[in-house]
Amino acid sequence: MKLATVRDGDGLHVAVLTRRTGGAVWVSVADAALEVLRDERCPGSLAGLLGRDGPRLETPRLVAEAAASGPMPRTVRRWRPNEVRFAPPVPQPGSFLDFYAFEEHVRAARSKRGLDVPAEWYRHPVYYRSNHRSFIGDGEEALFPAGESQMDFELEVAAVLAAPLAGPSAAEAEAAIGGYCLLNDWSARSIQREVMAVGLGPSKGKDFATSLGPWLVTPDELGDLGDLKLSVSVNGQEWSRATLAGMQWRWGEMISFAGEGVRFEPGDIFGSGTVGGGCGLELGRFLSPGDVVELDGGAPLGKLVGTVRRREV
Amino acid sequence: MKLATVRDGDGLHVAVLTRRTGGAVWVSVADAALEVLRDERCPGSLAGLLGRDGPRLETPRLVAEAAASGPMPRTVRRWRPNEVRFAPPVPQPGSFLDFYAFEEHVRAARSKRGLDVPAEWYRHPVYYRSNHRSFIGDGEEALFPAGESQMDFELEVAAVLAAPLAGPSAAEAEAAIGGYCLLNDWSARSIQREVMAVGLGPSKGKDFATSLGPWLVTPDELGDLGDLKLSVSVNGQEWSRATLAGMQWRWGEMISFAGEGVRFEPGDIFGSGTVGGGCGLELGRFLSPGDVVELDGGAPLGKLVGTVRRREV
Repeated sequence: MKLATVRDGDGLHVAVLTRRTGGAVWVSVADAALEVLRDERCPGSLAGLLGRDGPRLETPRLVAEAAASGPMPRTVRRWRPNEVRFAPPVPQPGSFLDFYAFEEHVRAARSKRGLDVPAEWYRHPVYYRSNHRSFIGDGEEALFPAGESQMDFELEVAAVLAAPLAGPSAAEAEAAIGGYCLLNDWSARSIQREVMAVGLGPSKGKDFATSLGPWLVTPDELGDLGDLKLSVSVNGQEWSRATLAGMQWRWGEMISFAGEGVRFEPGDIFGSGTVGGGCGLELGRFLSPGDVVELDGGAPLGKLVGTVRRREV
Repeated sequence: MKLATVRDGDGLHVAVLTRRTGGAVWVSVADAALEVLRDERCPGSLAGLLGRDGPRLETPRLVAEAAASGPMPRTVRRWRPNEVRFAPPVPQPGSFLDFYAFEEHVRAARSKRGLDVPAEWYRHPVYYRSNHRSFIGDGEEALFPAGESQMDFELEVAAVLAAPLAGPSAAEAEAAIGGYCLLNDWSARSIQREVMAVGLGPSKGKDFATSLGPWLVTPDELGDLGDLKLSVSVNGQEWSRATLAGMQWRWGEMISFAGEGVRFEPGDIFGSGTVGGGCGLELGRFLSPGDVVELDGGAPLGKLVGTVRRREV
């Protein structure tokens, strides 16, 4: 099942992709829940729906079944795939942790600073907390800090929670994942290098924008993450291909490590860290204002596009 | 003016300290706003009140004036200073950034890892984002991770926002501060050292608990932060004295740096970083389960007490 947050005028609508005679259509979950399921309390946000339904996501599943088996009332909003506009699946998550799970990326990124992969990296799925208020959706602009000379993308996959967690086991954490999507952890490498030298992490190099989307795909539809074929194109030219096969830990293990003594909420976002070869820093090339960066996750994850802008001084 | 979030049974109440004949009393702002000001929409949370009133905080000021000038209706809840129980002033802030603004602490902490103060530290007020969901109030227990052998406190002062900000100048950021309070950034040094070696910051060494309080004091009442006399006692024995005089940047400068291209909200918490000599790591001694740690900020900031616990394996 694929779920999205759709922009329509000034409104945001949770939508599920339904397969109908005549082609696939995104259908408003709240509209259809009211009309078809007589459910008057369907949350209007995806975080709210994840929190109410849990990872089984029964409401959108029933909506998708109903849409596949017969016509929908005309009052149910719907959008064709070629005309839909996506917001981030969860526009306002409560928190965003980003891991660092791909050895190839860690090795390449640290070698730029003359550093090896430290022994500690193999012992813990280390993460940092990033800005949970700067997510942008497919097709939006990433506004880099003024003066940044090394504007970069980072190809990641994100997991989105569908249940509250506190001190979860790896199995509990894995079972609480509602879905996955692409994540572009835009990075301002000059300021990132400056602040990382102080030892508190990348903070200011990452806080300005993170692309998320275009939609959330549930674990049952996605299957084995290791089978995904990912790529990055800039202005239509392929820069990199990658897979998740080299991920050092399972998602449940990473979230369990971060979750010891810590609370997480439905809608919280967890980034995988950059896949090997998935950023310009590794490739030795950076972005310019106006560049269009497309992360491609194939049929399950879709394409997540963002345009590079830089704040004027 | 002093504002707090008071625990009473299962409820939380925003309270203002009022000076009445017979002594100072904490008075419920929402109760008094309704009875005395005919204000039926006074927010029930301090973050809500900061957001509605802004840094002038007119509602609690009018309540405090009314309380000083005459009797309050009996329906207005009140608590004597010797019986009040404090929650964190903002129990559920939307974000928590912690700076690193004291050279003496940076020098001492980094020398433990064989590192100097880097040139970049003098150029930027670097911060990391920490867990905004693990604040505890005065008198509560800090539950350290299982197996941690170097349990530590950190003496800091926090600023709390009273307005939304996006790309603020230093002056705008400074003017948006609603108040200050003590902050104990409890630190699990063993796991912190492990994760910091990977380069993404202290994350897991800090996420489990942060003490905040006991109350918020407004900038006009606090006066010059540099004049504050701070100290730390453990089980009644003084371990350290400190001041904020060595702070490398003004609060407005730090929040302006962090806020370029970034949104902040009322109730957001900003930590100063540990004051020079304000942690066991610098003093060469650590905490044990059951230890009672008291940060003392004198009359303006009060005392913030926490008890050390460690999760059983």
